[in-house]
Amino acid sequence: MLVDGKPYRTIWRDHVGVVIIDQTLLPHRFVIVRLENMEAAANAISSMQVRGAPLIGATAAYGLALAIAENPGDTAIENACERILATRPTAINLKWALQRIRGLVQPQPENKRAAAAFAEADRICDEDVDTCRLIGEHGLEIIASLHRINPGRPVNILTHCNAGWLATLDWGTATSPIYQARIAEIPVHVWVDETRPRNQGAALTCYELGHQKIPHTLIADNAGGHLMQRGQVDMVITGTDRTARNGDVANKIGTYLKALAARDNDIPFYVALPSSTLDWTADSGKDIPIENRDAEEVTHVHGLDDRGGLSRVRISPSGSNALNPAFDVTPASLVTGLITERGITDASEQGLRKLFPEINGNEC
Amino acid sequence: MLVDGKPYRTIWRDHVGVVIIDQTLLPHRFVIVRLENMEAAANAISSMQVRGAPLIGATAAYGLALAIAENPGDTAIENACERILATRPTAINLKWALQRIRGLVQPQPENKRAAAAFAEADRICDEDVDTCRLIGEHGLEIIASLHRINPGRPVNILTHCNAGWLATLDWGTATSPIYQARIAEIPVHVWVDETRPRNQGAALTCYELGHQKIPHTLIADNAGGHLMQRGQVDMVITGTDRTARNGDVANKIGTYLKALAARDNDIPFYVALPSSTLDWTADSGKDIPIENRDAEEVTHVHGLDDRGGLSRVRISPSGSNALNPAFDVTPASLVTGLITERGITDASEQGLRKLFPEINGNEC
Repeated sequence: MLVDGKPYRTIWRDHVGVVIIDQTLLPHRFVIVRLENMEAAANAISSMQVRGAPLIGATAAYGLALAIAENPGDTAIENACERILATRPTAINLKWALQRIRGLVQPQPENKRAAAAFAEADRICDEDVDTCRLIGEHGLEIIASLHRINPGRPVNILTHCNAGWLATLDWGTATSPIYQARIAEIPVHVWVDETRPRNQGAALTCYELGHQKIPHTLIADNAGGHLMQRGQVDMVITGTDRTARNGDVANKIGTYLKALAARDNDIPFYVALPSSTLDWTADSGKDIPIENRDAEEVTHVHGLDDRGGLSRVRISPSGSNALNPAFDVTPASLVTGLITERGITDASEQGLRKLFPEINGNEC
Repeated sequence: MLVDGKPYRTIWRDHVGVVIIDQTLLPHRFVIVRLENMEAAANAISSMQVRGAPLIGATAAYGLALAIAENPGDTAIENACERILATRPTAINLKWALQRIRGLVQPQPENKRAAAAFAEADRICDEDVDTCRLIGEHGLEIIASLHRINPGRPVNILTHCNAGWLATLDWGTATSPIYQARIAEIPVHVWVDETRPRNQGAALTCYELGHQKIPHTLIADNAGGHLMQRGQVDMVITGTDRTARNGDVANKIGTYLKALAARDNDIPFYVALPSSTLDWTADSGKDIPIENRDAEEVTHVHGLDDRGGLSRVRISPSGSNALNPAFDVTPASLVTGLITERGITDASEQGLRKLFPEINGNEC
């Protein structure tokens, strides 16, 4: 998608190596960072320079390829997988991408593994772009039908966190139907949850919607229920970091609260996901590990200070502890539908099996 | 309650005049501010140097007394009421306190009005202290009964915003049962919602619980539903800025989301209120005006910077708009009970009438 009118992906290879956009500096600075080796890729994931399940998967794939380029031996590959897997526990795409690279390279002779790994990582990226575009095309139908009900005004869509192009390679998951609606000239307006504690909504979703010229309004996470009560939200679309076999979705902390409010106000609540996010080994959301991140993400807020520098401020007394669970599970019963690259289904094992009959477990 | 071991109220008269604690500087600075005149009192309310429905009421009362001290004429009193009423639209105590002062002084000769107004404002404060203490004693019974179910661990109480002593004169509303539990030696642990956008939970509730040595943990507003799903919350207590005749409660934005999550997880959701917060003229929450505050409260976060100064940082791109509704309405159907100074009742007109048979409309 566009940054200052110029098209970008979130991770790519140039003639030297692998580069990313450092998302911890957005929306205030646009900085490209080179991933020199596997360790840099792992750090980029754990420090959230890259985030979002699909982009985490792509970065993991390149990270493993970088490790293989240094040492293509089986033990080194195993160690690299372990190191990368330990960065973040909830996004299943991490496991999925490593498994794909590993499964592909291990039958090959060691001197061919690095090239094969980079080529497969490239394919993961290209496929993600197609997948996200298809999610957008399917999701567009929902927006179009809502617009037909109220053609006189924009369709008001609430989203939580950033499941935008910055969370994927391009297009995004939750935002892809919005970008498709824009192309189809259906007027939309997006309510952007700021998404404490990391503010990915305020920082990243606002940033990318702004650069794509999509009308949007930032709100505190607390405000969504009130807007729904007042009839100012037509639908909710979020992404997911892992979807269990029964259709339960783990997504950024706070998603569950919005799903409850949507249900209470008869507002459709959709979750957009590439099939790489499905975890067939998780029977339900209870089997999805929930990452607890550093308490400082709650006690301190980062942003642009009045002198134009990047600073942080502490919002709580120094003696108070904080807890920072990064995800929650929205039960399938609250999800109107899952928007996938193969179409829309209800959030159930039956629905998912119909669209993805080939899926079994994921192992790395 | 205690600040560094020394007892305080939130507003008081000394030998010179009326003083408050400037709550916009908490938890980082403890600064006492003198209210020189009515305009200073009105500004203290609108800038949120004082906040919380009962404390807004008390400050309004002193503000009107200060106005009467300058000009005790009927027109001046009317103008002062209008000015003070315009500061914040949702807290009904503002209207209630002005009505009380005005009703008392207007039958009196002009030269006696100022002294009478100050005396009545003092009474409002003293009554609020008693009221909040009684709310605590009634609410204590709920905490004690939860403790009897699980005597081996602290009772985990989630609260939103600050309905603590800093929102009242002393004791608080939602926190008063917690302080009473402490006195009764019932172990409690409080989950403190940070309460974006103004972070009254992170800044004020953490501050006052810390100074009272109550175990507590700060969480992002997004996290409460997840903790409830995991069985880590035994009850929710919040305050309210206005309670409609049918038991609907207007409280800080985001309260409604916590009430939904509490209901979904069979967790009792209580609202603590002095009867001064009842608005018998509002048939339901639909009749309660919801204040929209400055968008900058969403786009910028204030706190202590790494150099020890008070700073603010912008969290969103400069081109993105924000909307900042300050309150939402939790329907009575989601409220387990209202904890008042006269006891606990279900959130209904019938229940409220039984406790407060004398209440009719509120007019100023």
